[in-house]
Amino acid sequence: MADYILPLEQLIEQFARLPGVGRKTASRYALSLIDWSDESARTFAETILSARSRIGRCKICNNLCEGDTCAVCKDTSRDPIICVVEDARAVMSLERVRDYRGRYHVLGGVLSPMNGIGPDQLEIAGLLSRLNNEAIEEVIIATNPTVEGEATALYLQKLLRPLGIKVTRLAYGVPVGADLEYADAVTLFRALDGRREL
Amino acid sequence: MADYILPLEQLIEQFARLPGVGRKTASRYALSLIDWSDESARTFAETILSARSRIGRCKICNNLCEGDTCAVCKDTSRDPIICVVEDARAVMSLERVRDYRGRYHVLGGVLSPMNGIGPDQLEIAGLLSRLNNEAIEEVIIATNPTVEGEATALYLQKLLRPLGIKVTRLAYGVPVGADLEYADAVTLFRALDGRREL
Repeated sequence: MADYILPLEQLIEQFARLPGVGRKTASRYALSLIDWSDESARTFAETILSARSRIGRCKICNNLCEGDTCAVCKDTSRDPIICVVEDARAVMSLERVRDYRGRYHVLGGVLSPMNGIGPDQLEIAGLLSRLNNEAIEEVIIATNPTVEGEATALYLQKLLRPLGIKVTRLAYGVPVGADLEYADAVTLFRALDGRREL
Repeated sequence: MADYILPLEQLIEQFARLPGVGRKTASRYALSLIDWSDESARTFAETILSARSRIGRCKICNNLCEGDTCAVCKDTSRDPIICVVEDARAVMSLERVRDYRGRYHVLGGVLSPMNGIGPDQLEIAGLLSRLNNEAIEEVIIATNPTVEGEATALYLQKLLRPLGIKVTRLAYGVPVGADLEYADAVTLFRALDGRREL
């Protein structure tokens, strides 16, 4: 007897494709789903298909959206600032900061030569054409503070400098609410380096 | 602007129904699924539906199976021992112990008066009728070592004693490979209590 019967095994394989889901977690999801009502399972399957068909990319900023333009790009009252981020998740996080009223541009990844991702695989051409057309005053580079995010920020900074637009980067430092004891040395160094007068 | 666009929000809600999945993990799954190819997403949705329709319960032991009888119950070479477990997951775990060649009976839960689960909600009648028909020599009660699992074991023990069949319970003790330092007092007490001569 195999560990699991075939249809269950297939379901586990599917769940195991989700990010961060190993075989054990996938089995847990699959066995739970088996106990759902027929209607619940059908809704789950249908939602997957309908989400896929209804969600597209904004033709201006490349963010996830319904239709061809996202709500931020449709909103003409937004400040002439573009915040450049790696993915749609970053947009959601920044939108929760109610104070930010600028626009976004989703790169769709970061430079990663090891994985064959160069500038052409990112939405950089679209960003340049927006900077030509939209009278933007500032570009905030908000890629993640990882090695690849940093490299991408550096690349964009060099690319945008000749355009004469103000280019900024998110501040580094200790996260609010954190304990200094647990901050790593690099973060603390950046926090000291970026200290501000009170 | 809401945190997420509607179809994405709906997908997140669906993922959040899986056990142990909060909103943040559900968003991660949903956003990853949006990036899958159309074919992958369709396979995922179809596997959910097909698993649901193909997987049923064994009419003998109540384990998950394709068709109406599971592979263990079909196997006539199995020892006349029944291991009573809470759910199908426990069967999978025990099947990995190659030494066990007995049969199973899946209760489909544990006694839990707080949640309205009494003996009638569990597959106990089926177990009793098997004990009448199958010439079983031993019943191993292998419900989980939780309060409810213990209560269920006690209930079954009392119920089965009049039948004159040997009823046993899985041994308690320190898990193999664990460090005594991290074992809780109750487990250590049980390990001492069940000590064996070498």
